[in-house]
Amino acid sequence: MEDLSRLFNPSSIAIIGASRDPSKIGSQILRNLVEYGFGGKIYPINPTVDELMGLKCYPKVSDVPEGVDVAVISVPSDKVLGVIDDCGKAGVKFAVVITSGFKEVGKEELEEELVRRAHSYGIRVLGPNIFGYVYTPARLNASFGPKEVISGNVAFISQSGALGIALMGYTIVENIGVSAIVSVGNKADIDDVDLLEFFEGDPNTGVIMIYLEGLAPGRGRKLIDVAARVSSRKPIIVIKAGRTEVGAKAAASHTGSMAGSVAVYESAFRQSGILMAKSVEDAFDWAKALAWNRMPEGENLVVITNGGGAGVQSTDTFADNGVYLKRPPEGLVQEIKRFTPPFASFTNPIDMTGMATDDWYHRATLAALKDPEVHALTVLYCQTAVTTPMGVARSIVDAIKDSGDSKPVTVGMVGGPGVAEAVSFLNKQRVAAYPTPERASAAMSSLYAYARAREYVVRSLGIS
Amino acid sequence: MEDLSRLFNPSSIAIIGASRDPSKIGSQILRNLVEYGFGGKIYPINPTVDELMGLKCYPKVSDVPEGVDVAVISVPSDKVLGVIDDCGKAGVKFAVVITSGFKEVGKEELEEELVRRAHSYGIRVLGPNIFGYVYTPARLNASFGPKEVISGNVAFISQSGALGIALMGYTIVENIGVSAIVSVGNKADIDDVDLLEFFEGDPNTGVIMIYLEGLAPGRGRKLIDVAARVSSRKPIIVIKAGRTEVGAKAAASHTGSMAGSVAVYESAFRQSGILMAKSVEDAFDWAKALAWNRMPEGENLVVITNGGGAGVQSTDTFADNGVYLKRPPEGLVQEIKRFTPPFASFTNPIDMTGMATDDWYHRATLAALKDPEVHALTVLYCQTAVTTPMGVARSIVDAIKDSGDSKPVTVGMVGGPGVAEAVSFLNKQRVAAYPTPERASAAMSSLYAYARAREYVVRSLGIS
Repeated sequence: MEDLSRLFNPSSIAIIGASRDPSKIGSQILRNLVEYGFGGKIYPINPTVDELMGLKCYPKVSDVPEGVDVAVISVPSDKVLGVIDDCGKAGVKFAVVITSGFKEVGKEELEEELVRRAHSYGIRVLGPNIFGYVYTPARLNASFGPKEVISGNVAFISQSGALGIALMGYTIVENIGVSAIVSVGNKADIDDVDLLEFFEGDPNTGVIMIYLEGLAPGRGRKLIDVAARVSSRKPIIVIKAGRTEVGAKAAASHTGSMAGSVAVYESAFRQSGILMAKSVEDAFDWAKALAWNRMPEGENLVVITNGGGAGVQSTDTFADNGVYLKRPPEGLVQEIKRFTPPFASFTNPIDMTGMATDDWYHRATLAALKDPEVHALTVLYCQTAVTTPMGVARSIVDAIKDSGDSKPVTVGMVGGPGVAEAVSFLNKQRVAAYPTPERASAAMSSLYAYARAREYVVRSLGIS
Repeated sequence: MEDLSRLFNPSSIAIIGASRDPSKIGSQILRNLVEYGFGGKIYPINPTVDELMGLKCYPKVSDVPEGVDVAVISVPSDKVLGVIDDCGKAGVKFAVVITSGFKEVGKEELEEELVRRAHSYGIRVLGPNIFGYVYTPARLNASFGPKEVISGNVAFISQSGALGIALMGYTIVENIGVSAIVSVGNKADIDDVDLLEFFEGDPNTGVIMIYLEGLAPGRGRKLIDVAARVSSRKPIIVIKAGRTEVGAKAAASHTGSMAGSVAVYESAFRQSGILMAKSVEDAFDWAKALAWNRMPEGENLVVITNGGGAGVQSTDTFADNGVYLKRPPEGLVQEIKRFTPPFASFTNPIDMTGMATDDWYHRATLAALKDPEVHALTVLYCQTAVTTPMGVARSIVDAIKDSGDSKPVTVGMVGGPGVAEAVSFLNKQRVAAYPTPERASAAMSSLYAYARAREYVVRSLGIS
């Protein structure tokens, strides 16, 4: 059996089910694949058409004169087995089965036969019942989700279809670059474990996020072992659908897969260093912070604000997450005292007061990043009349550049219409920014949570 | 002593500290007051200028020929007492002291003298150290925060200055209409208790939100008593800065006021029916749902979705908040089965599947709202290729109108760029909408949380 390298870096992809009808799922996938700029060969397969999107069509995969690495299959479920036979004949290595109508509608046997037959040809199966997959380093978007996925280093695995596609869109709005998005659907063959093993070694992936509903019987132990090993190198964030007993029942009725006991999952995830997110917002907030920052080298986290209230909210959020602010280094205090008024506060958070200007943000951020005793920085901003959100955002970006350093930074900005633009600007510069102090603080906390998780798995695995 | 009616509905306001310099806080307040459309008389007070913004200036408040209800004071702190004396001479009823430099910088005696002197003239004091106040029913924006506050029925009281102003902007972005925004600052005289008593009887206020850092000694017991009474009529949401022990220390160092013991606050809030929010996002999410919905008349909450994953996330969030979904009424199931495919799911959440169209959303929403056994509805949407977010948003709004009913509804929409516009459209129609299933579900949960809190206080107060 192949490992998954060729699935993500294929030389050629065949699309079975593309047609002249642009509303067909196969046609949408073909369009995404062509327009997103896949560099390998693309073969639309359709027995009644000569050409689609300027590409020559072939009646069957086995008619393609060269080898085909990946076959994306979007034909009615009763035709899938026949297509697999033809893929076997053509030497296809991966079948990406978009088609639904298998185990999720009670057709377990059809699904088992699909995998049995594929394996008899040495073909591995992604799906069935999926929206496709994306791998941005290869400019490969073989999905019927949004086209203009932003490239970056977050890999996202989704067991959910509609939610997964919607979250593809969410990554675009939130400016979160992805290395991969993989719809796993019924997980008849390739599952989270296989994908974790691939992303473990993938230099383009820095953070792995999984929307997980359930696991096939017997795969739980394997997932924990692999996740523990991967966690020692890269953070894994899991949104576990069915965290609660009633949620687990809802998940079971949705997927037909056992969602498993809540307590068992929680303890297993902890053991394997997985960060559990309760909501999609949390998961993506953390992914952004983890993807765009290196890890803090120590516990000295400094918070800078222009509003005491934002500082208190931040302190509470950090405490909720087991992160406690220490006194700021004296050198930093002296530096910031040079331009702030006497009633500024120098416990941590450092409150520059509502008089803070764009320039103060620049100087304070720069001073904190240059201070060898500071390990991480959260900058908070409340919109005031003496600043603009964009001015402050630019000050922060400039200070990060001017520092010549790469300490972890998160930013929380609260205010009116200009704030969304400033947050988006920061995110485009890969500075993890959020519209509230609490989200910026929870995101920074996720770095410390991962540091603790990594330490735990490294120790328990005996790796050093 | 006056109650606060004239503070919020004054016939006339004097602004002391407005000048030709538009960057002065007094000038900004004057501009907001004039441009937001205050209907009463406005008197700029400045001894060196004849006219400001087309309004005749007077050298002193006591020079104004007619009576002055409210004096907004933005002069240096060493001039405030003199101004109060003149206000006393002029028969002013409320002094809104913007000026800082009192207790928060250690000048307790100056602050005590301010209140003593004001009270000797029968003047009540809002502040000092505040950004002003807003009361939209009177088109009164006497603040130096954003001007174009949206009118509605949420009253927001903020002890924090910079965060409070920033949150004024946040209400605009989130389309949250407010009745009042009151900066209480040092709370030398008028405090949360007084304001709760005013908003209790204010027909323009339906929900009260407080950003609370601490209370003056002796006011805690009173707050609990008043809050319990008010909670029996209107929900009170409190963001308690310093929820954690370390956060409480940060709050104390920020305001100089005792943040109080965390456990004492929690228990007191519970007893008085207050809903405690951990973050500004939660607080405003809940405020929106509570402001725009009447209370559910029973436990039959139905969730409708086009994505099973979104449904599971919703189920988990409801369970986190003690809300458990019951089987949907059989009549509703039969109605929705008429247009959904056989693999749609009819446990609760009802999953119409990713095939759901705008029209299905209209029919399902309408059917749920018309079903006498349904008490509340949360609609979830994952962006798909067969729908647009705006199309679905319009379907939901139309169905609400067509139902002729007013059952509580929240909406959660996940997806790409079109989602923000659709969420904003729904919010403008006063349908509480959010960008994730979890936030929509937590917001609906806040209605049930308030129902429980209200029941508790009504029982313990012996009201019926």
